[in-house]
Amino acid sequence: MTDLRIALDAMSGDHGAAVVLPAASQVLAERPDLTLLIVGDESQIGAEVTALSSRYPGRVELLHADEVVGMDELPSRALRGKKRSSMRLAINAVKAGQAHACVSAGNTGALMATARFVLKTLPHIDRPAIISRIPSLNGYTLMLDLGANVECSADHLVQFAAMGDVVAHAVHGQASPRVALLNIGEEEIKGNDAIREAGQRLADSDLNYIGYVEGTDVFLGDVDVVVCDGFSGNVALKSSEGVAKLIGTLLREEFSRNALTKLSALAARPVLKSFARRIDPGNYNGASFVGLQGTVIKSHGSADSNAFANAIRIALVEIDYDVPRKIESLLASSLGAVAQQGVTPQQAAS
Amino acid sequence: MTDLRIALDAMSGDHGAAVVLPAASQVLAERPDLTLLIVGDESQIGAEVTALSSRYPGRVELLHADEVVGMDELPSRALRGKKRSSMRLAINAVKAGQAHACVSAGNTGALMATARFVLKTLPHIDRPAIISRIPSLNGYTLMLDLGANVECSADHLVQFAAMGDVVAHAVHGQASPRVALLNIGEEEIKGNDAIREAGQRLADSDLNYIGYVEGTDVFLGDVDVVVCDGFSGNVALKSSEGVAKLIGTLLREEFSRNALTKLSALAARPVLKSFARRIDPGNYNGASFVGLQGTVIKSHGSADSNAFANAIRIALVEIDYDVPRKIESLLASSLGAVAQQGVTPQQAAS
Repeated sequence: MTDLRIALDAMSGDHGAAVVLPAASQVLAERPDLTLLIVGDESQIGAEVTALSSRYPGRVELLHADEVVGMDELPSRALRGKKRSSMRLAINAVKAGQAHACVSAGNTGALMATARFVLKTLPHIDRPAIISRIPSLNGYTLMLDLGANVECSADHLVQFAAMGDVVAHAVHGQASPRVALLNIGEEEIKGNDAIREAGQRLADSDLNYIGYVEGTDVFLGDVDVVVCDGFSGNVALKSSEGVAKLIGTLLREEFSRNALTKLSALAARPVLKSFARRIDPGNYNGASFVGLQGTVIKSHGSADSNAFANAIRIALVEIDYDVPRKIESLLASSLGAVAQQGVTPQQAAS
Repeated sequence: MTDLRIALDAMSGDHGAAVVLPAASQVLAERPDLTLLIVGDESQIGAEVTALSSRYPGRVELLHADEVVGMDELPSRALRGKKRSSMRLAINAVKAGQAHACVSAGNTGALMATARFVLKTLPHIDRPAIISRIPSLNGYTLMLDLGANVECSADHLVQFAAMGDVVAHAVHGQASPRVALLNIGEEEIKGNDAIREAGQRLADSDLNYIGYVEGTDVFLGDVDVVVCDGFSGNVALKSSEGVAKLIGTLLREEFSRNALTKLSALAARPVLKSFARRIDPGNYNGASFVGLQGTVIKSHGSADSNAFANAIRIALVEIDYDVPRKIESLLASSLGAVAQQGVTPQQAAS
């Protein structure tokens, strides 16, 4: 395969093909070098894929999949029981070299379990992580892990830091990304043993490690990569979504309070629209699984077609920079030493 | 002591007496039954306290303290080395029965360590927790622990749930508070062992336990009390503060983009002001330490005088409802059984 090829799981997510196919059309129009492998049930989406293919001749292929992984399906059940699902076949296509990356809006746990099983982790990486941009005062912050690993050792956190550094550097062009560990305020009770040990090892590493940051700093701080366990990362991410929705709702309530406030909403409409565009979570849609021997991008399950198109664009960028190989080569080099110098539990306890 | 008496740590926090004394004046004017014990350095605040006392005769007392606990001071150092600090003497006053509660804007770790050492925990409570209201679509959600305990066992989480239930019921008048555990999305990898075990025990309890919620639900969901470890709780709280500030900044940027947008800001000013009041974190200032044999309220370190006054008002409410005694009696009764039926480590491991 010479041109760019991306496999799209067209059946998963809250809206399936209704969102995936319009998004595919958007990105095909932008990138003449792109071929899409649409994975889904031919009886349901065949006609639409044929129509898409006739608009972009030779650049759209349909791969039939007669199973779908449900949004609430257990990862282990999806992995064992849905071997002909659109999700599984899209990942298989990456493994087989038929696609450079795949994009799915399917359930995170099943997607991660399947991707890990099919693609395997990179050397020196124990666990893949989920990384994404989080909007911040400086544009955005990269944050990982956002939910793949509930409990993390110092080893895992250090590996996440090294991977986050590569993504910030290779994909986002940051010369010397500022990497920090997420922690809470008080000096003495700061973090747990894993965070403290990871902090010491990162301070001794070649990374531009700037120490601990708090939840506020993800959104306001001078930091490029925030590293945390997947539980805290998911809580931070979901909390930020909740607060943004809450504030949007309150703002709408205030503007629709009475005739006068409605009038001022009319006057402020261009500003409010521009503001809404800036905080639209769809702009940030598309989280990358890092640490795998292949590129998998997870779209939000409820993403609309514009948001899903953003996830495809992220896949394009990651292919362009060959993120898995970059992580692999970094971990094999000097900087990787930090990710591999794990202490044994006995040492840690002494 | 018959009337209400509250001890105020007048020296701690980012602004010390400059915020505490105006706040004291506000609340004294509202509550004629209130006497304040102002704890601080007489040479620095003596004149102002005398002026305050002359406006509210017989209702303001000064307790001299010549030490201050720094905002970055280690809790253990503050506890051992600052026995004459304003923070310590304010808590001592509660222990000695000279005040019904104390309020401090000092550093959380030192305040918690000192409060725990001086006041002791209630029977059946292993660890005190920090609880506060978090703004939500339904008004507010109570959340604990917000940062006192980094790692929590199932026992701790169950005790937090019982205490949150009491606060929601006794202080906030909720007949049957909906209690939930904070967790992350995926079914199979949900939480750690402590969360899963706590979930099982809460499901078997008399509490109105509604299961797991995610970070979004704290701000949008139909839940009254969200229970979590102090690390996740602190991350959720700080993230929400960060997002709120970020959104406020972006909104201001959009409205000050050019002459036209500035004009529309002028038109929208009453709406934006009313909106700003609704999301002002000062409205929610004042976190309670629960699980102690006494009432301690922590104000945000950077609170202004209106916000600090809110923290004093929370102390008044907690005194009114005698929260520590309510928690104690509930834990001694049937409902408390759930918080006490902890399994031994051997059982848990088997």
